[in-house]
Amino acid sequence: MMADTLKLKEEDTIRVSEGNLRETAISLFEKMGVPKDDCRLAADAMVTADLRGVSSHGVSNILQKYVLAYQKGLNNPRPQMRILRQSPATASIDCDRGLGIIIAPKAMEIAIEKAKNVGLGMVTMMNGRHMGMASYHAMIALKHDMIGMCMTSIGPGMPPTFGAEPRLGTNPIAVAAPADKEAPFVFDAATTVIAMNKLLLARRSGIKLSPGWVADANGTPIMEEVDPPEPNSTMLLPLGSTREMGSHKGYGLACVVDIFSGILTGGGYGAFAGDSSTGAIGGARCNHCVVAYNIESFMEVAQFKKTMDEWLVMLKSTKPAPGHDRVYYPGLLEAECEIEYRAKGIPLHTEVVGWIRGICNKFDIDCYV
Amino acid sequence: MMADTLKLKEEDTIRVSEGNLRETAISLFEKMGVPKDDCRLAADAMVTADLRGVSSHGVSNILQKYVLAYQKGLNNPRPQMRILRQSPATASIDCDRGLGIIIAPKAMEIAIEKAKNVGLGMVTMMNGRHMGMASYHAMIALKHDMIGMCMTSIGPGMPPTFGAEPRLGTNPIAVAAPADKEAPFVFDAATTVIAMNKLLLARRSGIKLSPGWVADANGTPIMEEVDPPEPNSTMLLPLGSTREMGSHKGYGLACVVDIFSGILTGGGYGAFAGDSSTGAIGGARCNHCVVAYNIESFMEVAQFKKTMDEWLVMLKSTKPAPGHDRVYYPGLLEAECEIEYRAKGIPLHTEVVGWIRGICNKFDIDCYV
Repeated sequence: MMADTLKLKEEDTIRVSEGNLRETAISLFEKMGVPKDDCRLAADAMVTADLRGVSSHGVSNILQKYVLAYQKGLNNPRPQMRILRQSPATASIDCDRGLGIIIAPKAMEIAIEKAKNVGLGMVTMMNGRHMGMASYHAMIALKHDMIGMCMTSIGPGMPPTFGAEPRLGTNPIAVAAPADKEAPFVFDAATTVIAMNKLLLARRSGIKLSPGWVADANGTPIMEEVDPPEPNSTMLLPLGSTREMGSHKGYGLACVVDIFSGILTGGGYGAFAGDSSTGAIGGARCNHCVVAYNIESFMEVAQFKKTMDEWLVMLKSTKPAPGHDRVYYPGLLEAECEIEYRAKGIPLHTEVVGWIRGICNKFDIDCYV
Repeated sequence: MMADTLKLKEEDTIRVSEGNLRETAISLFEKMGVPKDDCRLAADAMVTADLRGVSSHGVSNILQKYVLAYQKGLNNPRPQMRILRQSPATASIDCDRGLGIIIAPKAMEIAIEKAKNVGLGMVTMMNGRHMGMASYHAMIALKHDMIGMCMTSIGPGMPPTFGAEPRLGTNPIAVAAPADKEAPFVFDAATTVIAMNKLLLARRSGIKLSPGWVADANGTPIMEEVDPPEPNSTMLLPLGSTREMGSHKGYGLACVVDIFSGILTGGGYGAFAGDSSTGAIGGARCNHCVVAYNIESFMEVAQFKKTMDEWLVMLKSTKPAPGHDRVYYPGLLEAECEIEYRAKGIPLHTEVVGWIRGICNKFDIDCYV
């Protein structure tokens, strides 16, 4: 259900094929000193986000930030990923300041291997950088008939319920589970009401913020429509918005993410002050966690998928409330978007295309967009 | 933060010692034909909820429902718990219609044993019954220096975002993580805005419902204060209340719980219609899942606990927003409540005490309250 909210007007966009976008991203990452195989991984993570309509984490939005972070030396283009500790079902990894979009898929492969052997696999990652769309990593488990989970702990922007200072990040949780004939279940959500990107977008576009999205500088939830406040005086409210409407639950879930993908990595929680490499998205410290659950270790895979189909069909065929045409399940709209964009190309904002063409020209590399 | 919302007026209550409440609960469960060791488990789960101020899941509220369900034959007092499938990190259990408050602690012990061996342990439970306070089972992991998780999939009462029919339960998630000197982190929350119990309480007490708690009979979120509607025309809104404020996230989280503690158990999802044993809480079908994460498999336990302390102190010492005295972390208020109630006794509503005395008299058993 993320896809529709960021949809661009057709007249502001240029359609680019998946393949061309991928080749361009690979070339740009290579120029940053990233090894070719890692460039392919990074490009796949970003293009998959674009294809699924999650442009906030696609080439269209985040490539520029990654390139800037490489240029500033905040990300290590050739990280030496190192396993710090492991057991049959677990591993703890030092990312060596490598981008999460490149390290996390490798961590997920380790988790999957462990889950094949003992039923579950969980890998924590410290000393990491931005991981893009969390569900990308969770979805890697799908083709192995496993359920995948991914969480990431980010620098603070959310106050605790009743609090006046930011203490937790937008800390997203993603879970992907396979079905048989239906598009897979793919949940991917920040534990704040809105993602940081939506706030930045509103500020850029002069769109008003809806009630319950942010707190004022004193921590009081703003429950009416307002103009986007200045960057330094805005905190993102936890999912639930106010205590009365359950913000302690969104806050608590953000804490859970900070424990699993922050503290348990050994790299510290999101608000940990011991790291000065903050700044641009992609350059700031992020720690992560991925989990693979081998369905076969619990029950027959065929029965699981059949029940998933039945359940997903039940959800999407729920009678809609007045004013709505359809009911979705997490991942359905994104799967439909993917089919459309693969066929017709991915719509990129003309400004984004301009930036890509400019940077390709500057680096003297072939541009396919 | 659950504790304060259900606090009773002192003049309406009688203080009962933990020990007396426990003995009474044990006697009543024995009368239902439950083996003595299982009675002790059940009593501990309920009394722990009362001690932590979660009276909705304590002797004070739920014992009566369990007793009625035993009397109706909806719960099996002597279930033959059976492992259907297992691997080094996982097990899948048939609860044989045993109460979750008795089966889940045993499942958690299995998960802990597996986590000792391979780093993680996860046990799914099908064919189960009500499990009481989910965090009780998660907290069992704490004394083993592990993180515990517990989820339970319940019959439908929540519509999907945009939907007009209930499709998911209140599906709670609980996570407990140990600290060193600080009270442990204990998160426990339904994925609806409010728990079913709060709605029933409001209806009984004639208290108005706050905006964002429920949907009308057509599925439209009610965003103003209203009198509690009739039982059959109320649906509990997912955490987030409206699409604009993130209800698709609460809905998605409820789905995640339905996958892990419903579909993956082999016993089906919460809305599964193949079971007619609905009715009283405690008698209806509920499926569960518990997970144990061995901290030592990821990092030094001492370092983990030290960081937890630092992080929890940071959270609770956050500057409060105007109108608030303190900031809490999940589990803090409950831990403070436990200290008070252990010292001064658990305050039970006079009506509850009346019911307990009456049923003890009816069954001709010693009553300690």
